[in-house]
Amino acid sequence: MDGLQYCNWSRAIFEEMRDGGVDVVHATIAYHENFRETVDRIIAWDRRFADNADLIVKASSLADIAAARQSGRTAILFGVQNPSPIEAHLGLVSILYDLGLRFMQLTYNNQSLLGTGWQESYDGGLTRMGREVVREMNRLGMVIDMSHAGEATTLDAIEASNAPVAVTHANPRWWRDTARNVSDRVIDALAANDGMLGLSLYPHHLAGGSACTLEAFCAMTARLAGQIGVDRIGIGSDLCQGHDDSVIRWMRNGRWTLASADNPNGPAVLPAQPAWFSSNRDFPGIRTGLLRAGFSPTEADGIMGGNWVRLMQRVFRGEKSSGASP
Amino acid sequence: MDGLQYCNWSRAIFEEMRDGGVDVVHATIAYHENFRETVDRIIAWDRRFADNADLIVKASSLADIAAARQSGRTAILFGVQNPSPIEAHLGLVSILYDLGLRFMQLTYNNQSLLGTGWQESYDGGLTRMGREVVREMNRLGMVIDMSHAGEATTLDAIEASNAPVAVTHANPRWWRDTARNVSDRVIDALAANDGMLGLSLYPHHLAGGSACTLEAFCAMTARLAGQIGVDRIGIGSDLCQGHDDSVIRWMRNGRWTLASADNPNGPAVLPAQPAWFSSNRDFPGIRTGLLRAGFSPTEADGIMGGNWVRLMQRVFRGEKSSGASP
Repeated sequence: MDGLQYCNWSRAIFEEMRDGGVDVVHATIAYHENFRETVDRIIAWDRRFADNADLIVKASSLADIAAARQSGRTAILFGVQNPSPIEAHLGLVSILYDLGLRFMQLTYNNQSLLGTGWQESYDGGLTRMGREVVREMNRLGMVIDMSHAGEATTLDAIEASNAPVAVTHANPRWWRDTARNVSDRVIDALAANDGMLGLSLYPHHLAGGSACTLEAFCAMTARLAGQIGVDRIGIGSDLCQGHDDSVIRWMRNGRWTLASADNPNGPAVLPAQPAWFSSNRDFPGIRTGLLRAGFSPTEADGIMGGNWVRLMQRVFRGEKSSGASP
Repeated sequence: MDGLQYCNWSRAIFEEMRDGGVDVVHATIAYHENFRETVDRIIAWDRRFADNADLIVKASSLADIAAARQSGRTAILFGVQNPSPIEAHLGLVSILYDLGLRFMQLTYNNQSLLGTGWQESYDGGLTRMGREVVREMNRLGMVIDMSHAGEATTLDAIEASNAPVAVTHANPRWWRDTARNVSDRVIDALAANDGMLGLSLYPHHLAGGSACTLEAFCAMTARLAGQIGVDRIGIGSDLCQGHDDSVIRWMRNGRWTLASADNPNGPAVLPAQPAWFSSNRDFPGIRTGLLRAGFSPTEADGIMGGNWVRLMQRVFRGEKSSGASP
């Protein structure tokens, strides 16, 4: 399972998922979209499911994931990287749940109504509405994703949640020192919360950037396993395949600024992927790298997907299936 | 001029404006509404202007205000108490300006995308988007209203703005100690910024609450004049006439919580107005009280409206009139 992708989706990419043995993908369906626009993104996905029914299927439960695997298709789980789809309305959380949403980030770089993103100067932690939304996500069984959040907000969310919390796509800050990656305090809090860290393959999160080697990535993973526990690590590749640079401007600037926003990651261009990871076909190579770094086959399988499935078992409630599946 | 009202508007209330000699009212048109809903509120106002054309007229410039006064009608200026109408979209600021919006609060009690409200535990100040919106409001000539904001956010906004800033409806904290009222630091910053404080007549902001006397209110005003300058004081009555208690639940809870949110102002009921201020008819009595407290007629006239007009002269740009006036 890949814990996060935002590709310019196409049949070719879905074929690569099958080629790479990727049975489950958490797909970002919205960054800065409001509710109505997010519904449009879901409608676009409904078309993709219909047009590629031999390769992919919508999933909103572990039963759906198991059925997809049995039928040899990739299960797609919906997530959003910003709470903009719920606007200022607590009631929209369960509406989006009913439409299949299973992951939601509380912030994306900036301040949201729920908490603070990593690029703000001050992080005031979880807001009044943020505490309400955490409770509602817990009640529904939706994964709280703290990628792109500030440290204080992440720690607040982990403390407030009565279910495990995930950072679906980031690396340890001790490996690459950027506030976009997670601090030791966050790693320790995720471990105590029985949460998970999905390791990112996005160059700005890698030590050495695009030149990072598979060996270095797997050595980092081995060290991290000693810190957070091998069962609490997954992959969240942040694969952004098939887009042009305009997608970076959309992610960074949304509609909150007209300017080319200052960014510690530099100019708004898609960085080159590391040589060993440019598509879903490259997942088997990562498993091989993990074995070479000393992980057992069982441990490697956990990192490659089993741990995500077990996280969803801890978070999802009562295996309620989406009433809105096509 | 009254620097803020949110009444359950009716012809009777517009008649009282005329009876009380209230020539200009900054009317709140939205609390938690999104953009589309705010447009509906504007459409409802268009009906009111058509149905009560002998009493009120929409104003979006000082020229409109002068014309209203000459025709013996009350000029209504639009404002919103929350940036929810701009959603996450910087471009909606100028769209709303074109529809007549001339005042916008950056927050309402809670964290917004722009800054922090007074009821949050931590105030991280102006956000990245908040800085963009301040710049845009400056460019357009829209009054930045920091009522209901936290102290750090208020101070940040005053520092970031290149135009005077208003707190349209609050009192000094030294008079009634609630974080909803303004601290000495904020009063000093407003003075340095050539901004304004509109004094509130809402019981929860008054020393002694509903039992506050006119004499006590005017004595506070006299002391405040020595602190901020007599030209930087106005009235922002926060008059909420004709509503039932459901309006309090809407203001406090919006759609971000289902619960009856904890509130330092106690149960969600409209408090009784002080005996000397229950409608627009009572404004002349306040002027009399100010004269008794030692203000000159010129000073009293400034507080009763002239200072607001001079603030708008400093903030409004190029007297651009709304293209969307009915």
